[in-house]
Amino acid sequence: MTEPAAVPAVAASRHSLQVPDVMKKLVALCKTRGFVFQSSEIYGGLKSAYDYGPLGVELKRNLMDEWWRDTVTKRENVVGIDASIIMHPDVWRASGHAAGFADPLVDCKISKERFRADKAPRPNPGDELPMTCPDKGVAKTWAELIETQFGVALERDGNVLRGLKAISASDFGFFVKGQDAPVKTWPWRGYVAPTFGCPFVSEEKQFNLMFRTSLGAVDPMGDLSADLATLTASGDLAQAVRARYGKAADDGVLAKALSGFAVDGDRARLLRAVIEHVTGPAMAYLRPETAQAMFVQFKNVLDSSGLKPPFGIAQRGKSFRNEITVEHFIFRSIEFEQMEMEFFCEPGTQKEWMSYWKGERMGWWHHYANYPANFRFRQHAPDEMAFYADDCYDVEYMYPWGWGELEGIASRTDYDLSQHEKHSGQTLQYVDQDKPDPATGKKPWKYKPFVIEPAAGATRGVLVYLLDAYHEEDRRTATGELETRTVLKLHPRLAPIKCAVLPLVRKDGLPEKSREVIAELLKAGVAAKYDDRNSIGKRYAKHDEIGTPWCITIDYDSLQDGTVTIRDRDTTAQIRVPAAEAVARIRAGLG
Amino acid sequence: MTEPAAVPAVAASRHSLQVPDVMKKLVALCKTRGFVFQSSEIYGGLKSAYDYGPLGVELKRNLMDEWWRDTVTKRENVVGIDASIIMHPDVWRASGHAAGFADPLVDCKISKERFRADKAPRPNPGDELPMTCPDKGVAKTWAELIETQFGVALERDGNVLRGLKAISASDFGFFVKGQDAPVKTWPWRGYVAPTFGCPFVSEEKQFNLMFRTSLGAVDPMGDLSADLATLTASGDLAQAVRARYGKAADDGVLAKALSGFAVDGDRARLLRAVIEHVTGPAMAYLRPETAQAMFVQFKNVLDSSGLKPPFGIAQRGKSFRNEITVEHFIFRSIEFEQMEMEFFCEPGTQKEWMSYWKGERMGWWHHYANYPANFRFRQHAPDEMAFYADDCYDVEYMYPWGWGELEGIASRTDYDLSQHEKHSGQTLQYVDQDKPDPATGKKPWKYKPFVIEPAAGATRGVLVYLLDAYHEEDRRTATGELETRTVLKLHPRLAPIKCAVLPLVRKDGLPEKSREVIAELLKAGVAAKYDDRNSIGKRYAKHDEIGTPWCITIDYDSLQDGTVTIRDRDTTAQIRVPAAEAVARIRAGLG
Repeated sequence: MTEPAAVPAVAASRHSLQVPDVMKKLVALCKTRGFVFQSSEIYGGLKSAYDYGPLGVELKRNLMDEWWRDTVTKRENVVGIDASIIMHPDVWRASGHAAGFADPLVDCKISKERFRADKAPRPNPGDELPMTCPDKGVAKTWAELIETQFGVALERDGNVLRGLKAISASDFGFFVKGQDAPVKTWPWRGYVAPTFGCPFVSEEKQFNLMFRTSLGAVDPMGDLSADLATLTASGDLAQAVRARYGKAADDGVLAKALSGFAVDGDRARLLRAVIEHVTGPAMAYLRPETAQAMFVQFKNVLDSSGLKPPFGIAQRGKSFRNEITVEHFIFRSIEFEQMEMEFFCEPGTQKEWMSYWKGERMGWWHHYANYPANFRFRQHAPDEMAFYADDCYDVEYMYPWGWGELEGIASRTDYDLSQHEKHSGQTLQYVDQDKPDPATGKKPWKYKPFVIEPAAGATRGVLVYLLDAYHEEDRRTATGELETRTVLKLHPRLAPIKCAVLPLVRKDGLPEKSREVIAELLKAGVAAKYDDRNSIGKRYAKHDEIGTPWCITIDYDSLQDGTVTIRDRDTTAQIRVPAAEAVARIRAGLG
Repeated sequence: MTEPAAVPAVAASRHSLQVPDVMKKLVALCKTRGFVFQSSEIYGGLKSAYDYGPLGVELKRNLMDEWWRDTVTKRENVVGIDASIIMHPDVWRASGHAAGFADPLVDCKISKERFRADKAPRPNPGDELPMTCPDKGVAKTWAELIETQFGVALERDGNVLRGLKAISASDFGFFVKGQDAPVKTWPWRGYVAPTFGCPFVSEEKQFNLMFRTSLGAVDPMGDLSADLATLTASGDLAQAVRARYGKAADDGVLAKALSGFAVDGDRARLLRAVIEHVTGPAMAYLRPETAQAMFVQFKNVLDSSGLKPPFGIAQRGKSFRNEITVEHFIFRSIEFEQMEMEFFCEPGTQKEWMSYWKGERMGWWHHYANYPANFRFRQHAPDEMAFYADDCYDVEYMYPWGWGELEGIASRTDYDLSQHEKHSGQTLQYVDQDKPDPATGKKPWKYKPFVIEPAAGATRGVLVYLLDAYHEEDRRTATGELETRTVLKLHPRLAPIKCAVLPLVRKDGLPEKSREVIAELLKAGVAAKYDDRNSIGKRYAKHDEIGTPWCITIDYDSLQDGTVTIRDRDTTAQIRVPAAEAVARIRAGLG
């Protein structure tokens, strides 16, 4: 065994947070090296959808396997499930996700900001409507736009545009300062765009957070078009709807639309109700979260496992959300993976379990991180939480664009089980034969457990650990020159390849010897890969960039004395040891 | 160390194929023990959708991990990907899955059989139309039904009904023997139901194999209802469509429907075209197979990995199919998991690679099976294969209902890459700088690799190994009584729990000692679970039923001398060894 080879001096090391344009660089590295590709790229790409390449698929799986091991395998009182992505539509009615089907969505005609009408600021009649532009230049451009498009000249006061006042919500147009009658070039909708305060906004469109699909072999659009053909052939749409649907027209969406139609004759709304009536029964959703299945299968898991509170049900897998905003690479995508757990405990014990799981989860994130200080808790303010929630914390990470969510840990009381009891008509409770009911003092105690839910983003976890690992290092070579290397300092348990085995040259028995070492590594459970392309220097650089913690190099001495070189990714130090020792060291290094 | 305890004599051992009603028993075991639940059961269940419970999730993951290890981890020339489930819709146009959008689907009015109109037998005008009923009794019932519903009296000849003849396809009704004019109570559609030959069939409905959904934040049904309101307010639907869509009405679905409308005035078809025109641009599909992503990302994987043919790209994950038939538990479900690989090789080498992968895949299935003879290859007949396929084999398993598919291994030529080249406009080829083009004799050789595709069902694999493992054994107890035990003889690598650790009693330090042993097992990578519920006999019986290969029992002697008992699931033999040796034995037993 020889001494480590001289390690080049590091002149500077920059972590991702110190690297300008790091997201651009990371996205490029992910594509070039095969971590993450744009989905369907050869077809122009699918917005906000990503495919995990040969390295990304391993990184993501390693991360999710670590979570499973920590959350399920090693615990006596947590079990896993894997539920279907398409569930009974009533699940989403009970959970509130399908309430009202859709959110009203509006675009600002000037800034193009898209927002939810029901959450937008609503000034009172007579209030001034100042519009705050990003800067003076934009204010000038926007003032010109408003004048051209809506015929209204506004005063410019720095980056603020003034001169409009709100009128009563049912009226049309805007009051301009100094004028008596409203300018009727655009309807006043009663609210302004949240960021800039602009009242020139589009009409409302329906937005669905959940992806919808249809169950059943027969396409409901066939029935729909047949129905529409009949309904619209008649001059009297309302009468035709009543004739076609009979009693069904007396309540539900049809009845509501018919009564509105009698007042305003809005054919579009009535036809919309017809569409919902015809296509509704077969409608299903892609789950927007993995969590609900743990409540829906609570009883089956309880009955089959014999567990009793406190216990948890965990699930990992894909969820789908029709996101309005597209941003930050895999931080937000329409299809993403989650790692969620519902921990069922006795009512009254939720505070201690919240504290326990906060500790467990933060400890888990820290375990694989180079910079634990880039993780923090943020407690939700009371007005941020759902009405039923007891308490809630986000695990946040310091992304290049600022602190953002990575995991939520919520104290959800017995809200979810209660909702599913109500909607399913099934009793979802635990019967504790050994304890008296605190209310009556008599055994057994029947109760709906309270829930602590640590819900982590797996896809976000991949991004977080890529950012945590990303480094650029300036080093002096032996001849004193400065060179920069990019290195992903991924935790060995997360690294896609644990060890690369590199024959110095592709001949003279070196490949064969390399494959012997690979076989030993695989036998020891180490994901090792053979690599003989390019010069040894280029291969080291490649494995630094993809986060391979160790490279074993096979040279002519290896054939003579059976020793090999292990190179450490982070220090670039090399040591020479017998092959069997190299395997043992790397196995031990994986923890 | 003591000798094995006496093993009860086995009076009879029945494998699943010898057990009457085995599917019913297996489904019950799966629910009771937590392998597989009906999806959304508390809401009445979702047809053909299943949730994997605490044990099922582990079994499925173990199986899929074994496949990944064998297919990807251990090979130099196979890499994995994990692509999004929702891909660009053009992917499915290129692959042929979206061709014509939908298949025409028909129901037999008598037997309720559902079938594809375009695949049904089409007798010639004048041909007799015998209807073959399951038995004489059914023939009587159906003859009565036909007489009541359609006013046609048929002759009964055993289980066959006779008396109808086909007329020309464009005519209406049926010829009844001895009559001159056709009976016009039901239209003759030109084909009969495939199983029974019945010509009384419903009109055609559209069937979609693929689940559709809509991309984009705004619900297209909003735009659709607004459009329909305008279009149908006018008396002239065709003119309104032309006015609304302008140039778009000159080609595509609208133009086709408009020209048909001019002939037959079929409003339903024109409205159907409007629906497709409006909702089409946002339409997307849930993938019906994992395979296409490997072709779509072929170039990115090639560029990032530096691989050259022969090489493979593998993927495992969920696929979705709107199945017509519901059958056999998880054998066919709307949501299922696949394990697929595309192996890209030089044109002309596909035969040898087909032979190689047949051997690899059958070897893999055999490795985990108790009864390898229940697996076989079935070569596809030329008329069974897609027109582009070179050769195709199914790996079949002997299910309780007969031989059925488990994996397909297809020689797909360069068809898929060619299709995606054509539809995407991107070049999808490999440039071999070292080899001359066989056609010109000059380097480089640019070619589209040929593909061998081993495509296995992961969900089916779970069912197959549950069936392979299922045994009922009659045994004589020490007192000579006969008792039956149910045991799942799952391969240890597949078993959800590898080792249960059972304290004899729940006191006197036995639980603590048990947890020490668990910690050692977990440290050695063995998925071990603590279990102290019920008597030791009941616990053994439970772990037999869920396929736990080994139980370690901790008793008072364990506290004294550090030895434990290992019980073997298959033989029920017990041996006593020091705890550390028990851990090592079990670790070794996992392979």
